[in-house]
Amino acid sequence: MIVLNILITNDDGVKAEGIAVLKKVLMQSGHSVTVAAPETEKSATGHAITLRRPIWVKEIEKDGGFFGYGVTGTPADSVKIGVLELASEKVDLVVSGINRGANLGTDIPYSGTVSGALEASIMGYPAVAISSIDPHDPYFETAAAFLVKYLKEFDIRTIPNLGALNINVPSIPYEELKGYKITRQSSRRFDDYYEKREDPYGNYYYWLMGNIKKEKLPEDNDWVAIEHDYVSISPLTIFMNDNRWYEELKKGR
Amino acid sequence: MIVLNILITNDDGVKAEGIAVLKKVLMQSGHSVTVAAPETEKSATGHAITLRRPIWVKEIEKDGGFFGYGVTGTPADSVKIGVLELASEKVDLVVSGINRGANLGTDIPYSGTVSGALEASIMGYPAVAISSIDPHDPYFETAAAFLVKYLKEFDIRTIPNLGALNINVPSIPYEELKGYKITRQSSRRFDDYYEKREDPYGNYYYWLMGNIKKEKLPEDNDWVAIEHDYVSISPLTIFMNDNRWYEELKKGR
Repeated sequence: MIVLNILITNDDGVKAEGIAVLKKVLMQSGHSVTVAAPETEKSATGHAITLRRPIWVKEIEKDGGFFGYGVTGTPADSVKIGVLELASEKVDLVVSGINRGANLGTDIPYSGTVSGALEASIMGYPAVAISSIDPHDPYFETAAAFLVKYLKEFDIRTIPNLGALNINVPSIPYEELKGYKITRQSSRRFDDYYEKREDPYGNYYYWLMGNIKKEKLPEDNDWVAIEHDYVSISPLTIFMNDNRWYEELKKGR
Repeated sequence: MIVLNILITNDDGVKAEGIAVLKKVLMQSGHSVTVAAPETEKSATGHAITLRRPIWVKEIEKDGGFFGYGVTGTPADSVKIGVLELASEKVDLVVSGINRGANLGTDIPYSGTVSGALEASIMGYPAVAISSIDPHDPYFETAAAFLVKYLKEFDIRTIPNLGALNINVPSIPYEELKGYKITRQSSRRFDDYYEKREDPYGNYYYWLMGNIKKEKLPEDNDWVAIEHDYVSISPLTIFMNDNRWYEELKKGR
């Protein structure tokens, strides 16, 4: 098999269980791993990056040994500094995850996990984001085992410029996975509302609440794959061009 | 002309000059305007959103009168709460800007300004992001005047589901604009490096630095339009599917 130099990041923080499981399983498979991830939890941080302030890097220990680097920044910061300063060898692949919770449909723009992978792609490195869909009972081992197996059959050198894979794994035992499907990011989204409260000082504050909108989604999309116990693998790009609309606007001139 | 109920946000903060110029010029043109923007500067915040903590809203005064709402959150938070709680009438259009500095190419995933517009599109509202390209000498009046004129000829009801326009305006006097071009998000990106320093306590910290990469870009893209003194109008979508790669992966199974 091919041994890869892998940089791992996440958005749940360097001390999260998902990153520990991922590191252990990738190393057991013979890969070389560097961890560089936010020192604290950075969920829903999107593709934020730290400008105008510096970032600090701390060496994090676990079980009496060196585990990885904690970065006082976002997943995108962690990837940048991980690739440029922290990894001791040239990075072959950046893996962002394993996230505790799904990154499907319109979750993607908010996702620190997916942004970690897309940051790598902007820097010119092959990248994969991986999430376990159930935040309460994630089955990280299932996702890690799937990734190891997929990396044996998938040639990461075929990842196009400015692209990254977004993998979501059902939270079930590995043997119960039906397989995987190549999917598209869906329009799965939330119907939001705010719960308004008054604080002890007489000011109003608001909690964001929401439910998934019931919408009919096309068959080939990320959410439908997951619902049928398939791993969803979506090929993403950092380009957000709406090509059909572009053609219409060009004609309109 | 059509009078619109416009919600304005930005990522430079509710007290930034760009939002004040935009509000003034839109109101002078007869539109009705509500401002809901981050209380403090949130540049490069991407599509971050506040979960697990509440947000507060403050009424901000300017020149002795009510100016708008300052939100203790991100541009995406400001749009959500602006549309759902703060605007007194149904919002027809969300405008995010005027940003101090360009949002072109690979700036877009990091951009709080563009994310403000894309947040509106996820919620089902027509939306536009607008940026003045030169952060040092932005010429906000040029961008505001262009937007007012463009809204007279462009029917916002033609903005597709989950789409938004990303407008970048050269920082020159209005009369010197050559016109506008419908463009695509380019791969314009930065070559990054870190400057490493030691803090007074013996810890290392890192400043992110970078220069724009010299790359040959296709003619129809956002950056080339700007370089030739045209306004760049890119039709964007929240979908990040790489359709060509999707087809290849599907075939590979």
